[in-house]
This record gives sequence, structure tokens and C-alpha cells, in this order.
Amino acid sequence: MMIISTVKLPEECKRLIPVKDEGITEDDIRNAEIIMLWPSQAREILPKAEKVKIIQTFSAGVDDFPFELLKKDQLLYSNAGAYSISVAEHAFALILALAKGVGVKKRVETYPLNNSTILILGAGGIGSEVAKIAKLGFNMYVIGVSRSFKGTYYDEKYSLKDLEKVIGRADVIVDTLPLNKETRGILNYSVLSKVKEKCIIVNVGRAETVVEDDIYRILKEKPGVRFGTDVFWRVNGKENFSTSKLWELENFTGTPHIAGATANERVLKNALIQACKNVYRILNEGEGENKVKIEDYI
Amino acid sequence: MMIISTVKLPEECKRLIPVKDEGITEDDIRNAEIIMLWPSQAREILPKAEKVKIIQTFSAGVDDFPFELLKKDQLLYSNAGAYSISVAEHAFALILALAKGVGVKKRVETYPLNNSTILILGAGGIGSEVAKIAKLGFNMYVIGVSRSFKGTYYDEKYSLKDLEKVIGRADVIVDTLPLNKETRGILNYSVLSKVKEKCIIVNVGRAETVVEDDIYRILKEKPGVRFGTDVFWRVNGKENFSTSKLWELENFTGTPHIAGATANERVLKNALIQACKNVYRILNEGEGENKVKIEDYI
Repeated sequence: MMIISTVKLPEECKRLIPVKDEGITEDDIRNAEIIMLWPSQAREILPKAEKVKIIQTFSAGVDDFPFELLKKDQLLYSNAGAYSISVAEHAFALILALAKGVGVKKRVETYPLNNSTILILGAGGIGSEVAKIAKLGFNMYVIGVSRSFKGTYYDEKYSLKDLEKVIGRADVIVDTLPLNKETRGILNYSVLSKVKEKCIIVNVGRAETVVEDDIYRILKEKPGVRFGTDVFWRVNGKENFSTSKLWELENFTGTPHIAGATANERVLKNALIQACKNVYRILNEGEGENKVKIEDYI
Repeated sequence: MMIISTVKLPEECKRLIPVKDEGITEDDIRNAEIIMLWPSQAREILPKAEKVKIIQTFSAGVDDFPFELLKKDQLLYSNAGAYSISVAEHAFALILALAKGVGVKKRVETYPLNNSTILILGAGGIGSEVAKIAKLGFNMYVIGVSRSFKGTYYDEKYSLKDLEKVIGRADVIVDTLPLNKETRGILNYSVLSKVKEKCIIVNVGRAETVVEDDIYRILKEKPGVRFGTDVFWRVNGKENFSTSKLWELENFTGTPHIAGATANERVLKNALIQACKNVYRILNEGEGENKVKIEDYI
């Protein structure tokens, strides 16, 4: 069983699975049955990988995976959950910076978190960590809106279809959604116009789940609403962190997509190990976690 | 029993204690046995208050109270703990903004909170709330350094004398200390020089517990250290929020003393009610909470 990785892996991985992660040749790619990679590398590698049956991504999201290259008998596994704690901490960094006016350099009204209501969009790995911090750390009432639920810290659970019904109850909204056919643009003007006058909205999922023009309009119309995001809208494949017009607004803050592993070696290492553990599971149990539902994307 | 308040109090207070809080005359001040006020008002009011036995402040800190005006038989009670949850949330706003680079507008290394060690200076109302959020919300190992301890979320407890011995173990340091003879300048160069290369230090206590020149020097010498404060050093009685030279540094952020009640009506209202509850306790049980130890200050 030939397993290759496009990324040099930590020693812990080598003890789990037999994987070649250095000096990969064209022959290695041709013969590999399992390939571990970032989605951005798939377009180059997949066409040469004649025998590959299983693709394991290092990323949690697979929205930029070239699904059209995937053959019927090939399975795709994402690394969902690998960055959950880091991203959930990041969500609270944005929430609290907005709530307490950190970085504003003048006196602003502070928003208390204690006893307030948080609405979490997407109750997967990140969402469940956000719920835990909200409930145990900040004594918040936790409402989840999701397709399926991980974790135990939700006071109320709804499906994505009910979003418009519950969004007006939230003091804080955290978007942890993956980007797929169902979630693209889910936070549009019609939905966003129902938020409270003093609501904090934070996005650590994918930018395109929010309509940029619509959140801009809401922030103009309701100056008490505050929005923070770690993820930006892709323009020619690149996130528009520095060029987004949201930066004009006082009730906005952002970070350049650093909630996950890009900005911390320890987080990256743990994510690589989680991907290896999943491949180990596939090898030993025949099935891993986070098998991607292709029909969500194409 | 004449009780007066310099601040208009919420209705909830009036149901607890008989207090005059509007149209206070010179006669009222002369006859009052209990006076509720901000420390900054004491210099004007105390000399006229011939019968006052008990002074209850609305503030948590009493470092700017004119102790020299206090007579031997007069008792001073602070409002310690009244702002604890709000200030503890603020501490995490500063910690997380520094840890995740919120407001920096470029990619910085992020610092994980999960599994890291937090050192809390002062284990009173604020400290115990910080400990709770750290332990339950962010899975941190919690070390407290204090004279006495409130709360149950400390993994290790030390006295202030042991500060130099434990400070080097901390990934995050939160200063919640009141300002008194013992704490003034406790974070000086000698102590600060022992912190980790990548340590986050946050002050939500009183600015003067830190030596401004010394923290400036540490931030220059160790660029991986990040410092955030809500409290600034008093120059002619006014905090130097906008003029502190710390703003020159990239590894610094601050807010203009808004962690407590100044920036949120709900927090202020709760603080006023807590002060009233303490006066109620004094009236009914003969003793309230947070009796100030005068010898700590003069």
C-alpha cells in the first residue's frame, strides 16, 4: 500500500502509518493508493495519480477542491476538526475585541457576554468548541443552527432552514459553516436584516457564506452591529483581506485568515497528526472520519 | 439612620435600604451616618459629614481615596467584585486580541491559549472570574499569586512574595491587583525580565502596579512578549491613555479604562445594586463585605 504526502510530516505520523513524505517522484504519484495533500495541490497531482483510491486533505474545508477531477471510485476525506480549538479561540478573539473595543483607541460602549445569547452556525468541530467556551467560560445561552450536531453545550438546536426564525434572538452570532451549495450566501440581506441592533457577528468559516455587500449595508444601517472576520472573499482566487471595503467601517475588524494553522507551528503539527490518524483509521478500520459528501459541492 | 448617595440609584436599591439619592443638601451631608460615593467625591464631602460612621464606595478600587481625611471610628467599604465579570471578560479581550493579532492588520504568529499556563496576580473578585474563564473556557493551567484567595479554579496558589519564582512559568499573566503599598511597582524590570520570550501580559488592575518604563523596556528587548492594558498611569491625576509611549510599540494594545462600568449601563446598574446590598448587610448584620484595611494604604 503506497501512501504519499505532499507535506513533510511529524515523526508521530511515521510511527502510525508507512508514508513517503520526501523526494516524491512521478512514479510515486502514479503508484500511490492514498495521497495526503492540500486541496490547492490536487489539480496538479490527481491527473497523474492513476491508482489513487483515497485522498486525505490537510485542510478542514474542501470548498476549493477540484471535484470535477475526482473519479467515481475515489474517496475524499477532509481534516475537519483539526483546527477546531485554535479557530474557536480565534472566534472569541474577534467577538471580545468587538465587544470591548480593543484596537479602537477611543471609549466605546462595551457589550457584556455573560448571560447573553450566542447563535452558532455550523455545529461541527469548530462550532462545538465555540459552544463549550461560550457556555463554560462566559455563561452564555447557546443556540445552534446546523445540519448535524457535535458536542453537548447547545441549549437549543435548529436546522439551517430555521435560521431566519432564530437569528433575531442572538447577541452574538458565530459563523463556522463550510462553504457548499447550501451555505453559500446564507447570510444575505434578508436574513441579516433581522439581527438585533447591538449584535456581534463573527465569521471563522468561509467568507462566501456571507454576502459582502449585504453585511456592509447592515453595518451602515445599524451602527450598533459589529462584524469581525478571519476569512475574506476570494477575488481571482485570493482573499481580499487588504482591499475589502469593510475596512472603511468603524464597526468592523478582521484578521488575515490566521485562525487555523498558518500562524502557529504547534497547531499545524497537530493538524498533520490528525490527518495521519485518520489515514491510520482508514487502513485499520476500513473507514475514516470526515468523508466528504461530494453531492454537497457539485 | 440617615443614608445618602451621591449617585441616583436604581429602584432595586430603594426597596433594600432607605437612602436619599436626589436633592442632597448640606444638612443631609451633615446628618448622614452612611454615605455612598465615588472616592473622587470624598475630598469635597467628608469634611462636611460630621456624623458619618460608614462610607461605601461605588468603585472597586480605593487607591485614590483621601485616607488622611478618615477619622478613627469611621469604616470604609469598597465595592470590590462589583465589576468582576465585566473586567474578567475585558482581560480575555486583551489576552485574545494579543494572542491572535486582532487589530494588527497583518499576519502575526498566533499564540494558543489551550493547555497553556496562566498566572493571575490578585485572586479577588476579578481574579477568580479570570481563573474560571481560563480553566473552563480555555482549558488553561491556573496559577494564582495573591494575599488571599476567592474561587476554586486555581491549580496552584502562592503569596505575592513568590512572584519572582513562578512568573517564568506563565504563558499568560493577568494583573488584577489593587494598588496599595505592597503592590505599587510590583511588576518592575527585575521581575518582568524573568517572563517567557512569548508571554502575554495584561493589566486590568491598576496601572501603577506595573512600572511603565520597565514594561516598555521588556517589550523592546523581547519582541515576542505582548502587553495589553485597560489602565494607564496617572499624570496630574489623569490616566495617560493617549500619551503613553507604549503606543509606539507593535507588541502593545490598550483600551481607555472601560473594563468596568463606565462603558456599559447594565454593568453600572449592577454595581450600584451591589453597593446597596452591602449597605443592607451592614444595617442588618452589623458588618458588610470588602472592609478596607486602611493600613494597606497609609
